[in-house]
Amino acid sequence: MNRRTLEKPDGRRLILYGREPIPAGITAPSPSQALFAPNAHLRWHPLRGEWVAYATHRQHRTFLPPPSFNPLAPTVDAAQPTEVPAGAYDVAVFDNLFPAFTSLAHDPPTLTIPTEPGRGACEVVVFTQDPAASLGSLPLWHLELIVDVWADRYEELGARDDVAYVYAFENRGVEVGVTLNHPHGQIYAYPFIPPIPARSIGNEQAFFASSGRTLLEQMVGDELATGSRVLYSGPKVAAFVPVCARYPYEVWIAPRERAASLAALDGEGRREFARALKTVLLKYDGLWNRPFPYVMAIHQAPTDGRAYPEAHLRAELYPAYRMRDRLKYLAGSEIGAGVFTADTDPDDKASELQAVTVVFD
Amino acid sequence: MNRRTLEKPDGRRLILYGREPIPAGITAPSPSQALFAPNAHLRWHPLRGEWVAYATHRQHRTFLPPPSFNPLAPTVDAAQPTEVPAGAYDVAVFDNLFPAFTSLAHDPPTLTIPTEPGRGACEVVVFTQDPAASLGSLPLWHLELIVDVWADRYEELGARDDVAYVYAFENRGVEVGVTLNHPHGQIYAYPFIPPIPARSIGNEQAFFASSGRTLLEQMVGDELATGSRVLYSGPKVAAFVPVCARYPYEVWIAPRERAASLAALDGEGRREFARALKTVLLKYDGLWNRPFPYVMAIHQAPTDGRAYPEAHLRAELYPAYRMRDRLKYLAGSEIGAGVFTADTDPDDKASELQAVTVVFD
Repeated sequence: MNRRTLEKPDGRRLILYGREPIPAGITAPSPSQALFAPNAHLRWHPLRGEWVAYATHRQHRTFLPPPSFNPLAPTVDAAQPTEVPAGAYDVAVFDNLFPAFTSLAHDPPTLTIPTEPGRGACEVVVFTQDPAASLGSLPLWHLELIVDVWADRYEELGARDDVAYVYAFENRGVEVGVTLNHPHGQIYAYPFIPPIPARSIGNEQAFFASSGRTLLEQMVGDELATGSRVLYSGPKVAAFVPVCARYPYEVWIAPRERAASLAALDGEGRREFARALKTVLLKYDGLWNRPFPYVMAIHQAPTDGRAYPEAHLRAELYPAYRMRDRLKYLAGSEIGAGVFTADTDPDDKASELQAVTVVFD
Repeated sequence: MNRRTLEKPDGRRLILYGREPIPAGITAPSPSQALFAPNAHLRWHPLRGEWVAYATHRQHRTFLPPPSFNPLAPTVDAAQPTEVPAGAYDVAVFDNLFPAFTSLAHDPPTLTIPTEPGRGACEVVVFTQDPAASLGSLPLWHLELIVDVWADRYEELGARDDVAYVYAFENRGVEVGVTLNHPHGQIYAYPFIPPIPARSIGNEQAFFASSGRTLLEQMVGDELATGSRVLYSGPKVAAFVPVCARYPYEVWIAPRERAASLAALDGEGRREFARALKTVLLKYDGLWNRPFPYVMAIHQAPTDGRAYPEAHLRAELYPAYRMRDRLKYLAGSEIGAGVFTADTDPDDKASELQAVTVVFD
């Protein structure tokens, strides 16, 4: 992996990654020329016991591009700069123009509940220069590079004092609110451990303390032994519809043996993680022969300086549809009470995905 | 409040409620003639530490009505029975034909994770006989009756041994997945305390132990003292956009002083709760002069037999839109990490709702 760090005219950072060395002489464009000076704050939700992030500057956006403008495509006209330059690179990472978390956050409002500056970082990960590609359609070497980029972001952002949790995710499809079709993901570097991983970590710690194994080692082993829901099984990594799937076609990808993060996964493991991910994404797109929308969440060990011997890397994919043309809605039970109601059997959904043949390499 | 309990031909229960006594001689119809014998089970999600509900019989639905058929409208043709009869009543409650929770649940599968029968109950609450009405457009006396019905369901279901939490909610609008436009809500009677109220209760208990007041008494008092986000303020009940709103236009309705449930609220309090609810719903519909979709969650004290001196009734309303024609999507940060990111200021959203004039009575 090769990388080169540049600074945009507005002060934001751009990092270019490539399989080949990044040539010198590339300059970083920005569609916004105003000096980057975002603000954001956190409010404590006393009933839920969690932070809510407020990035209210977002409603005062000065940069409102026309719908046809693709800010994630390489700049071809210097008079109409995008977020990324033309040139020989494969993946680009830059500071989100409207971050919910930023190291520049300052002076939160004084309210009847606790507030804090919304420290941390929000980055955009442009997966490819090709606006018509998708994460799953990229060649395997390119996916391997993206896995290396995620690992790099985990290490660099995780080393910051104001970052307790580095979270890589992809929202794919208009069905999950995506407004830019260009293949991209995001990194949120939170200044606290978010509620969902905080709960997982508690459960993982209890399991690890009683068994000496990680909960994911147990669950991946159980899935491979059961076999009926497995989508990919390699020497180091497995992908499967979990026995406790909440979403129809939900898939988890995880190493068989503990790795706390992509950064902690060795080269062979990372390559297999990329292969498992490509397998799953091609099965998704092949299921109904059309792009399959999802949210992908990559969970790794917190980076708050404490030790997490029970942490076990995984990607969880939450599809938007429960059947062709029928969205899975999160409604009263899910968002009001926190109870998922599933009307499909995980074994049935896994069978459908198993039946999709994928060919690559 | 008057009520009459009937049995449907398939064995399900129907309860009719009315301002006036329900006449005798009404018989309960059912669009499904097969004996009601649902099954459902729970699977333990070890990472999240929560139950996931599986109602897989739902995918084998034998009853597939044409799109024009409204099963919640009064039956007019005995050859095409709906879920509710014709006759003099105002509100109807019946057992959901495809419940995620049912007292009849039995024999959960044996899996690599813990499972349980999906005990409890799922009821449908038909708010009115008028398919063109909406909860907010009903006359105040009718809303007061619905509040009494919710209180009745809380008491009756809460008294059951297999019910630990009675949760009334409404999903309104196709934007939140509703397929039947006829005004209706639902009751889920869970055999456990769901994750979201379980966390709230923990935070409420801690606050109550240290202050001797409920957390909601504190928060409602703070909102009324601040004043800038208040939508309704009566002697007993208030409605406001909370200072920690996660959704744009999120509103909470709660009594000023502790009431553990609608059943524990006195008559005057219930009437005011109905008035506050109608005020909020009319403001919602008036904001853009069109039906305003939302999820409404009514939280009351658990019914597992323990004492909850810190429990404080409230309705929380989560709108589907963040601005006109722009949905609020729950994506990577919200559903993968549990962190809500808001790009609007609760004070601004409250101002917009305050500016909507509502007239009733």
